[in-house]
Amino acid sequence: MSALNTDLYQLTMAAGYFAAAKTNEIATFEITVRRLPDNRNFLIAAGLQQAVEYLLNLKFQKDEIDYLRALPQFAKAPPEFFNFLLKLRFKGELSAVPEGTAIFPNEPLAILRAPLIEAQIVETYLLSTFAFQTLIASKAVRCVLATQGRPVVEFGSRRAHGPDAGILAGRAAYLAGCLGTSNAEAGRRFGIPVFGTAAHAWTMAFPSEEESFRVLQQLLGNSTVFLVDTYDTLEGTQLATQLGRPMWGVRLDSGDLVALSRKVRRILDDAGLKDAKIFVTNDLNEYKVAEMVAAGAPIDAFGIGTQLATSFDAPALSAVYKMVELRRNGEVHYTAKFSDEKKTLPGAKQIYRFKDHDVIALSSECNIDFAGAEPLLRPVINAGEIVEPLPSLDRARSRAAAAIAALPSPLRSLDTAEPYRVDVSPHLVDLAQSIRNDLQLARL
Amino acid sequence: MSALNTDLYQLTMAAGYFAAAKTNEIATFEITVRRLPDNRNFLIAAGLQQAVEYLLNLKFQKDEIDYLRALPQFAKAPPEFFNFLLKLRFKGELSAVPEGTAIFPNEPLAILRAPLIEAQIVETYLLSTFAFQTLIASKAVRCVLATQGRPVVEFGSRRAHGPDAGILAGRAAYLAGCLGTSNAEAGRRFGIPVFGTAAHAWTMAFPSEEESFRVLQQLLGNSTVFLVDTYDTLEGTQLATQLGRPMWGVRLDSGDLVALSRKVRRILDDAGLKDAKIFVTNDLNEYKVAEMVAAGAPIDAFGIGTQLATSFDAPALSAVYKMVELRRNGEVHYTAKFSDEKKTLPGAKQIYRFKDHDVIALSSECNIDFAGAEPLLRPVINAGEIVEPLPSLDRARSRAAAAIAALPSPLRSLDTAEPYRVDVSPHLVDLAQSIRNDLQLARL
Repeated sequence: MSALNTDLYQLTMAAGYFAAAKTNEIATFEITVRRLPDNRNFLIAAGLQQAVEYLLNLKFQKDEIDYLRALPQFAKAPPEFFNFLLKLRFKGELSAVPEGTAIFPNEPLAILRAPLIEAQIVETYLLSTFAFQTLIASKAVRCVLATQGRPVVEFGSRRAHGPDAGILAGRAAYLAGCLGTSNAEAGRRFGIPVFGTAAHAWTMAFPSEEESFRVLQQLLGNSTVFLVDTYDTLEGTQLATQLGRPMWGVRLDSGDLVALSRKVRRILDDAGLKDAKIFVTNDLNEYKVAEMVAAGAPIDAFGIGTQLATSFDAPALSAVYKMVELRRNGEVHYTAKFSDEKKTLPGAKQIYRFKDHDVIALSSECNIDFAGAEPLLRPVINAGEIVEPLPSLDRARSRAAAAIAALPSPLRSLDTAEPYRVDVSPHLVDLAQSIRNDLQLARL
Repeated sequence: MSALNTDLYQLTMAAGYFAAAKTNEIATFEITVRRLPDNRNFLIAAGLQQAVEYLLNLKFQKDEIDYLRALPQFAKAPPEFFNFLLKLRFKGELSAVPEGTAIFPNEPLAILRAPLIEAQIVETYLLSTFAFQTLIASKAVRCVLATQGRPVVEFGSRRAHGPDAGILAGRAAYLAGCLGTSNAEAGRRFGIPVFGTAAHAWTMAFPSEEESFRVLQQLLGNSTVFLVDTYDTLEGTQLATQLGRPMWGVRLDSGDLVALSRKVRRILDDAGLKDAKIFVTNDLNEYKVAEMVAAGAPIDAFGIGTQLATSFDAPALSAVYKMVELRRNGEVHYTAKFSDEKKTLPGAKQIYRFKDHDVIALSSECNIDFAGAEPLLRPVINAGEIVEPLPSLDRARSRAAAAIAALPSPLRSLDTAEPYRVDVSPHLVDLAQSIRNDLQLARL
């Protein structure tokens, strides 16, 4: 959680703000997602816990500052700047939508208000933290919806973008409704249920498949899942039935999973193992799962790896961190961008969630029309200190479940639906227009 | 670098191997990529440095073991297993192709031989480490090739899959030929050149664009890059020319970059700033870059972020870790999988690189036909200790450059080329066939 884990320009800008005596200016930035990725009807906000831990622990180490001091880009930086960096802690405020909230483009996931330099330095880490977990949660929820109630376990650590991404992907997947993860460290760190079966290497490590099954059963008892496809799926299943109880069931990891699951089900049933379950894996995604469910395949649970832990069909969000206000000498300046492709709205905001639509408004608005709506953005950090403990991961998971259930049903389908209605309050529209006019006037 | 950062089933299998008294069996696993992703003609191996650091430091902490002990999956594990885990260190051997080597499907990136339990536990971390950096290096090289010699800087930390992925993406991109990265921590940790300009927020934080430019120029001198598109690209460029030298040049981050770069070039030239450079960014990828280069746009350097740091068009490799040998009571058993979709070849291997093709052979072969070929896999760790220091990142980068230059030119194009010729030695083909026959016999 190094403070140096940021884009260099955040640090050169910090030096520039310092040189220009802008240490007392207070900036407000918001994190939004510009557009929904393909194949997404909504996003599930995630990553706040890690963002908060980062902000509360922000600190440069001496060797990091020595590194910066030696870079050519800092040759003309004021010498006092490095001492300033050494003492720098996050003293600002953060508000955010709780993890597990369904959100839409242009709705701020989080709003940060802090001395300009602090606000600038934290941009890179905050963006990657919020965007990655939100990305994975928003993919995971599709996998969960596709199974129509059957459990999904996140299995993607080995294909995630490095070892840490695997841990965070497990967290985001659980938050979004997966039953658990295969990642043991994610289990320990976040209290997530962990699951696993056995690998083909396990079967191959024993002189016979039967011996490998027997040892597994002795070890795992009721949680035993026999991986039956190392040599031949149906023969492997027969072998599992010969060993009989205790077992949870069998795993299929190759071939035509619909056809095989039917044959395997029959073998299990014929052996009197009606309660034995069938778990499937093999480069699954929400579409493959939905097909199997639609085909009525007797599959009880799904393990989804690569495509979930990388959000394979849409591996990045267009998340941005944009300045919306700047307080200089007590005066608030509203800021925004107006280019067609990169439009932003000025001012610190609140999102009001009504039963069937949202309104993005200025946080300073006091509008009777917002009565009955839920204000989604809540204070999280104030003056560098946490306001109250964040909800537990299980509460965030419940919030996600409730948020998903409350969405119009077309948005819960795997197909692309009509966009959810998100209005912008008249006050905010007016403010944006007046800023735009001022900018145009200033450039005449 | 927690040893617990692995799939739970590695640990339950470890307990099972322990219970089955298999602690003295020695397994050989190889890491290969099954298929090239779409739009890739070759891969650039990367991630070995981090894999080695992981293996040399592998160790369970006491609280991690306490966590495992309390899991239901370990209820029947032998009590001595936990003490065994506490003392576990990596005592095996690793051979690998040096970072920066061009590799192809089914060629082992690395081969690990170790006591079965150690070999199993490290699978998840090793796969994600090798696969992620190889993924990013293999994307980055395409971006580098597309510019035909103009520098590319990796700018993707904010969109990488979490804060650590950003650091590793910077490393892999540099290894593959990028000039550097925007990530300051990647710069410090790996000695990579770091670059940056300024954000739109910088311009907006000053009462006027001119003042923002002036402060930047005072700070950065010759490295100043004016971001000219905050309000109007051509007016911003005019402003930059009024400030004049010192500057490196300007950055364009929106609009039609080909058309704008021509107009901007003219404005700079007309102002006598022929040496001022044009840097462009804005959700670039190798195709957009190639188009700009083909159009003759006067662009001097490219910053590529999201699409590079996530390998956006192919965000995962089909990397697998497969057992190829198992030594039990002094006897070597060769292992392989034969299903059509997941075929593997048995035995520890060597890759022989000839001028125009590779041969995958058994490492135990001594074949006069391999004279003159380069054996790509080299010993890295022996009995848990590093054999010799790994080549520096800069040497790996030079190796990548040489490897790419040596490829047949169609493979260096952005289009999909005929696959590179990779043969399998007759000995290895024979061994695979005999294993297959044995397996079929055994199952009759």
